[in-house]
Amino acid sequence: MSADRVVVLAGGTGGAKLAAGMQDLVGDGLTVIANTADDLETLGVHVSPDPDLVTYWLSGEIDEERGWGLAGDSFTTFERLAQLGAPDWFRLSDRDLATCLYRATFMGEGGRQTDAQAQISRALGVAATVLPMCDQPVRTRVSTDEGWRDLQTYLVAEGGTAPVKGIEVNGIEAASPTSEALEAIASAEAIVIGPSNPVISIGPILSIPGLREAIAAAPAPLVAVSPFVGGRAVKGPTELFMAAIGRPSTAAGVASLYRGLIEGIVCDAGDPDPPPEDLAVLSCATLMEGADGRRGLAARTLEFIESGLAR
Amino acid sequence: MSADRVVVLAGGTGGAKLAAGMQDLVGDGLTVIANTADDLETLGVHVSPDPDLVTYWLSGEIDEERGWGLAGDSFTTFERLAQLGAPDWFRLSDRDLATCLYRATFMGEGGRQTDAQAQISRALGVAATVLPMCDQPVRTRVSTDEGWRDLQTYLVAEGGTAPVKGIEVNGIEAASPTSEALEAIASAEAIVIGPSNPVISIGPILSIPGLREAIAAAPAPLVAVSPFVGGRAVKGPTELFMAAIGRPSTAAGVASLYRGLIEGIVCDAGDPDPPPEDLAVLSCATLMEGADGRRGLAARTLEFIESGLAR
Repeated sequence: MSADRVVVLAGGTGGAKLAAGMQDLVGDGLTVIANTADDLETLGVHVSPDPDLVTYWLSGEIDEERGWGLAGDSFTTFERLAQLGAPDWFRLSDRDLATCLYRATFMGEGGRQTDAQAQISRALGVAATVLPMCDQPVRTRVSTDEGWRDLQTYLVAEGGTAPVKGIEVNGIEAASPTSEALEAIASAEAIVIGPSNPVISIGPILSIPGLREAIAAAPAPLVAVSPFVGGRAVKGPTELFMAAIGRPSTAAGVASLYRGLIEGIVCDAGDPDPPPEDLAVLSCATLMEGADGRRGLAARTLEFIESGLAR
Repeated sequence: MSADRVVVLAGGTGGAKLAAGMQDLVGDGLTVIANTADDLETLGVHVSPDPDLVTYWLSGEIDEERGWGLAGDSFTTFERLAQLGAPDWFRLSDRDLATCLYRATFMGEGGRQTDAQAQISRALGVAATVLPMCDQPVRTRVSTDEGWRDLQTYLVAEGGTAPVKGIEVNGIEAASPTSEALEAIASAEAIVIGPSNPVISIGPILSIPGLREAIAAAPAPLVAVSPFVGGRAVKGPTELFMAAIGRPSTAAGVASLYRGLIEGIVCDAGDPDPPPEDLAVLSCATLMEGADGRRGLAARTLEFIESGLAR
């Protein structure tokens, strides 16, 4: 068998890169369900950092060097907004701002985020389907010694370095999976939890009432790809968030979070703390360098699934 | 005497240019009351074409060659919005879009348009005070053989060439002068109706309940500057709108609209149809070429007022 219909759950860079590799393999057979608990309203627009990052990786417009944002974009509108006195802690380049303004306007007129995203993906020539994890507003908040604030305030305005003491996902109880997400999950031949932050990226997706259950009930095998390479996060504040919930930043730590849900895990050959014996494990190089690296990890993950999760 | 406190009523290019000349003479003693019946919501932002045009002339950022828009600005965000499928009939350059997005956000949070404009003017280093004519939404609509539509749809989307059959100013009954406008009018030493479209630019300002009365009651002399040079509009669809209300595009036509309100009129020496004898008239060259031309017309207008409207 060869999987034609693949679902990837993704947050930021790691998940988005694996999705890009997967799109190279299965094209429009790929559906990415992207975390929206990172979303924020700023500058009068609706920023959806994870779906946008995924989209820009899939459209080939990403700044690969930096790992986020649109390659070669200017900041003319943003800089003028800042000159006028608008808050300038969350920088948006001109084309990125256009995406976020388009989304805000679309949703302001009563449209679903799912439909705004579909139009954005279509316009940018993305072969895969990118689905916001839900259409209800869900927002992650974190506490440190300084108290509670929105996730992006912590990550961007404050640099995201203070130890995280608490995490809450506001609005998650009222969220529900979209029909598009449920259909993609039910008809998938493989479901992959991408190498994104298990706590603040994948966590909110799996916390949507009914979504975890739909994944568990799906006929497709479910595997996770660990975001940790050599026992470290490649990028971003994943380690701080793992520490906040008392887990090590290792494959075993990831496996403990997805226990009871995943049937297998792809983890880095250099991980110092392998997953428990009762889980099917593919241990390989997981750092994705360039298009070949992304495709390679996607292919190894699919082969692992297609082999019946043989180790 | 020499007027230190001047109020100019303005719409688009002509009024804005005279305001720029006046600012050169009286600096922060100038208050411009700008028409907002041209405003529109598009692309998720609030465009205020006349106040913006005035502001860009006063900040020195205007594209003088073209007569509107910001000199040397790019269209990156707009072009991306259009790529995403947003309506593209009303083009906004990047810095202009920033102004309009800032205003939309400010007003969306419950702020007054007057306060949004004050912040925009301050940020752009404008010495004069620019006041939207009111803080309530007022929108001009026009009818042609094709029926009724918003003014900007007629002017921009359709090119503004079809004969105008009817004009209505929606929302004008519910509008009221701002305290800032009333204070500027009451304390002015000279009030000038700028050389803007008398029908769709000056007309709405004077139609705000209470504003015409406040101007009539003000101690300052009130003069109009005719927008017609040699019996033609310098720019824009003014002639179509004068024809729609059955008036000639001449100084006499303008004077007939402001009858009972103005004490004098500045009109072009080449006007084929001078104002009636009972009005104080300054006949001179009124075409404003370059900064000297703008300052010159502003100076002649002030001297005319200061001379006690001697012909």
